[in-house]
Order: sequence, then C-alpha cells, then structure tokens
Amino acid sequence: MSVSTIRDLQGIYVGHATDAVGATGCTVVVCPEGAVGGVDVRGAAPATRETDLLRPEQTVGVLHAVLLSGGSAFGLEASCGVANELERRGVGLDVGVVRVPIVSGACLFDLMCGSAQARPDLTMGVRAVRDAYESAANPLPRGNVGAGTGCTVGKTAGPQRCCKSGLGEGVCEAGGLVCAAVAAVNAVGDVIDPSTGAVLAGVRDASDLARFAPGGSEGLLLDMAATMPLPRTNTTISCVVTNAKLTKAQACKVAQMSADAYAHVIRPVHTTNDGDTVFVMATGEVEYPVDVVGVAATRALEHAIVDGVRSATSAYGYPAACDWA
Amino acid sequence: MSVSTIRDLQGIYVGHATDAVGATGCTVVVCPEGAVGGVDVRGAAPATRETDLLRPEQTVGVLHAVLLSGGSAFGLEASCGVANELERRGVGLDVGVVRVPIVSGACLFDLMCGSAQARPDLTMGVRAVRDAYESAANPLPRGNVGAGTGCTVGKTAGPQRCCKSGLGEGVCEAGGLVCAAVAAVNAVGDVIDPSTGAVLAGVRDASDLARFAPGGSEGLLLDMAATMPLPRTNTTISCVVTNAKLTKAQACKVAQMSADAYAHVIRPVHTTNDGDTVFVMATGEVEYPVDVVGVAATRALEHAIVDGVRSATSAYGYPAACDWA
Repeated sequence: MSVSTIRDLQGIYVGHATDAVGATGCTVVVCPEGAVGGVDVRGAAPATRETDLLRPEQTVGVLHAVLLSGGSAFGLEASCGVANELERRGVGLDVGVVRVPIVSGACLFDLMCGSAQARPDLTMGVRAVRDAYESAANPLPRGNVGAGTGCTVGKTAGPQRCCKSGLGEGVCEAGGLVCAAVAAVNAVGDVIDPSTGAVLAGVRDASDLARFAPGGSEGLLLDMAATMPLPRTNTTISCVVTNAKLTKAQACKVAQMSADAYAHVIRPVHTTNDGDTVFVMATGEVEYPVDVVGVAATRALEHAIVDGVRSATSAYGYPAACDWA
Repeated sequence: MSVSTIRDLQGIYVGHATDAVGATGCTVVVCPEGAVGGVDVRGAAPATRETDLLRPEQTVGVLHAVLLSGGSAFGLEASCGVANELERRGVGLDVGVVRVPIVSGACLFDLMCGSAQARPDLTMGVRAVRDAYESAANPLPRGNVGAGTGCTVGKTAGPQRCCKSGLGEGVCEAGGLVCAAVAAVNAVGDVIDPSTGAVLAGVRDASDLARFAPGGSEGLLLDMAATMPLPRTNTTISCVVTNAKLTKAQACKVAQMSADAYAHVIRPVHTTNDGDTVFVMATGEVEYPVDVVGVAATRALEHAIVDGVRSATSAYGYPAACDWA
C-alpha cells in the first residue's frame, strides 16, 4: 500500500469546517467502526474532552472521532455537533436505547486571530463530519483550513512578530505499517526543519520583520529571561491514525512517544503556555511492535507539523513563511 | 556567575562510586539544605524510588539527594546507603526523634556489561556521598564513572553492535539563572549531535563495525519492523539542578520540559524498553519564569547527554565513539 494522504486510510474520514472571515475552524477524524484510542497531554494549558475515557483502565474501548478545534475552550461545542451528526449516521457505541458516539477533542487558542467572537459551534462540528464523508475522494485541504484557520506560531516576543501557521498532514510507512497524522500548529515556539534546525516559521526579527529572529524562540526566551511577553494561550493539537493493532495502553504509549515529534520540530514546546495534545487512533489491521509504531507515528507527526507551517498562507495581518521567506 | 561544572553550584555536592571491574556504579547529587524536587518518568520500564513524594499534592517539600544508579532495580539498595550516610551527617527532614533524609532515585540496566552480579549496594551509596563532600573542589569525573560505568547506547540491533556510553554533565546559564545537569546515558537509541543530526554513538553497521549503521537506530527500527531484537532494559537517567525558585508543581513541569532534551538528542527514545527519568532539584535563589527555566534545563540536559557519550572510553568489549570514530 502506498499512502499519500490520511484520507487514503481504510475506514478513516477526515473533514474540515472553516470560518475564513472569523479565522477559526475545526477538523474532524472519523472512524465509524471505532478505533482504539490513546492520548498524551503534555502542554500545561490544555482544553480537552473525553480524554479520561482513553486511559487504559477505563471501560470504553472504542473511539469514533477526534475533533481538533479552534475557539479556545468554547470550541469544545463543535465536538457536540460531531457527536450529533455521527448519531444521525448510526455511528456510536450501542447502549441499547441509542448509539453513543465517542468523540474526543482538543482546542487551540485562535481568538487573537480574526474575530475573538468567532468560535467553532455545533453547526461547524456537523459541517466537518459532512465534509469528511462527502470529500473522502479528494485530497485533504491544508494550511488555513479547519482547525488551522486561525493558527499562528513564533509568539515568544508577542503576537506582532509571529507568523501565520495552519493545518498539516504527514504520513510514514514502514513495511505494511501506516501512520498518518493531522496537526493544527498554534505553538508559542518556532517550527524548525528537523534535518537542519533552520527556522521555518517563528518569531521575526525586531529590526527586520522579513527575517527570523537570530537564535529563534528559545534563544529569545533565554535572552529576555524574566520579561518575555508570552501570550497565555497556544497549542499544537494533533491526531495520528495508524493501521496497527494496539491495546489502549499501547495507544497511549504511542501517543506519548509521538509527542516527541513536537520536541523535534517546535522550539520551545510543552511550555506553560501551550496545551499540547496528541490523540492516537488505531484501526487494528497489522501487528507491529509498539516501539516501531511509536517511531513511525513520530515521523508522521513531524511531517504534519512542518506541513502545517509550509501550507499556511499570509492572512489576518500575519505573514506565512512560505509567502514571504 | 560563570559555572563550568555542576560542582560550582552553591550548596550542591556531586559524587560517584565506581566498580570498574564489575562495570557498575552510582552517582549522587546532594543538597544538604533540601531542594524543591520534581520528576518526570517517561520511559515505560522505570526503576525508581521516592517519586510519588515529588508530586505537587504530596506533603514533603524538600529533596536532599537524587541517586542515579546502575544495577537495574537491585541498584535501589545504594539509595538506602545514601540515606544512612546523610543521616550520619545530620542531613534530613526533622521529624522530632531523628532526621529523615529524602532521597529519590532511579536505576539503569547495566547487568549486560561486565558482571551481571555487580550491583551498587549500601556501601557504594555511602561512598558516593563521601566522594561528593570530599571531592567538592575537584572537577567532576565523567565517562565510565559512577552511574555511567556500565552504560551503553545504540542497541536496536542487539548488544553486539552497540557503543560504550557513560555519565556526562552540562550547564546552561541565562542571566543569573543557572541550570546544570548530570546524565547517565544507557539508551536503546542512538545519541545524535543536536545541531547536525549526526550520530555520535549508536548502532554500528553490520558489515563494517567501525561505522554507524546508515539511518541510525530509528531507520533500523523501521526497516526491521517486527523482528528487532530489542533488549528489554535500557534507560537514560538524569538530574537537573537549578538555582531558580520553583514550587513543586513548577519543578515537575521543568522536569517534564527537560525530558524533551532526550527527544532532541536520543533517537528513538521513551520507548517501551527505556525507563527514562529526569529529576529536578531547585535551590530557590533567583526568580525566573518557568518556561525560561525549562528551556535552560533542557539545554543543560542536552549537553550532559552528549557529554556522556563523548566522555566515555572503550571498555568491556564495547567501543566508545570518541576512541574509535
């Protein structure tokens, strides 16, 4: 199998709802048959739902959808729209009287970008699911779409010197193993090229806004020490889908390993100002050791994060690296 | 202040006990006045003591020593020797009838290297504390000493193609903030140069053992997929000391951020076969934002890990990269 997009994965549907005027949106990953789910929350300012349920000791063993959403904590409303639309489509855990779709989700803070009043709501959750089914045969739009619509990165020197970012996807195959990831990249830190360390999108130089700040976000943080005007709310949220057969505990371990992708390509990351969260959905088709799945998932997620900043286009007053570098 | 070694830090004593014949040892970091402690355990096969106590909600707010030890879980015995020796020196939490030294610790698996019967015991814990006090004015020995004595890295293709590793230290200063780290580097993965990505110590090529395997440990894992002969027991354990003022919760956050140093320089890392653990000790002299401390601690720890493989010398049948590259 050669997989070029997450939409190539068997039984997986990915869709967006985008509010280009308000600069927000959401991106859903649906597995109607139910995947085995896992999660890793490593940022200190997360906004999430249905993450407790993913812990290995909890009862429910299926995950039908993951919603990545803008709108800060308000964006959790869109997950409810996802659940409503999945119920209408007969997707969910059979509890006798109805089916209850299991929908995990995480939000990012994009209220600084575009309108602070624009947040993904019930309707956008429904639209994202419909897009997932209706656009299944098309390439996945990336950049300023879905949860990536209002994303920015490189904010250690404040919002006026940051870059536009967006939503990206990435794939890693090893033998019959496939890992594919989507990521909405809204980090306080810079995104770097993992092979060279060069900044791809980040804080721009105070004296020449068409260049990146020397030393990047990390150098800036160390220089500025106690005085940096960090915005309180940033987050990179992502979902890795794999065709591997994993238990819930293994899916959580793969999510934890995958979070190292953030460390590989975002500097700094996992700060007190990020709510970094990684979801994993495993569809159980092939057997590989957990460490192999973890390494492949990490690679896929690195690609997705880099793709998120490379696919973004300048908007809302923020330049995108690809347009302007 | 210009700090070149962890032994320069005010009120901090670092010492080793080394069994060069058996290929094991331990390294202690002592803070007689009591530091604020934090921990991050991210490997899936840890061997630790007094880590629950470091959680923010627990009562005890001081940490007198961290012991990094070889000997797999048997090595926890050496921590008891540390506690006994600290009691003799009047160091500990005053509980009325005695002082109870608070000693956290983590072990690594070096039983494959040298003698499987050699493990750090009570006596070695005592010796490490004595060395910490008596050698305080000397440079800290690194490489095949203390907890680094039996360390190896690059084991994704099995032990016969790995490299000797060791114990390293690293420092990062930013303004008046100092972070200094010691690390015993016994990862299943390779150690890479964070600025170039080049393998510094890792799996050697099957057809030319004087070279590193193309693609490194991660590439090998993905190639070998289901059949890699991973040893079950590997671990990188470390302690970061900072002069920053942190709460216990903040010390845990700094430990969590510092664990990204492992992701920066070890590939793969945080696997099911590693018991990766990072301790933080904060001495409370200067106030800096947690994220700045986290970034500086991460830098210090990267340096320490790289130093661990660079300082190691060939021994016990395993070549060290610096001797042989």
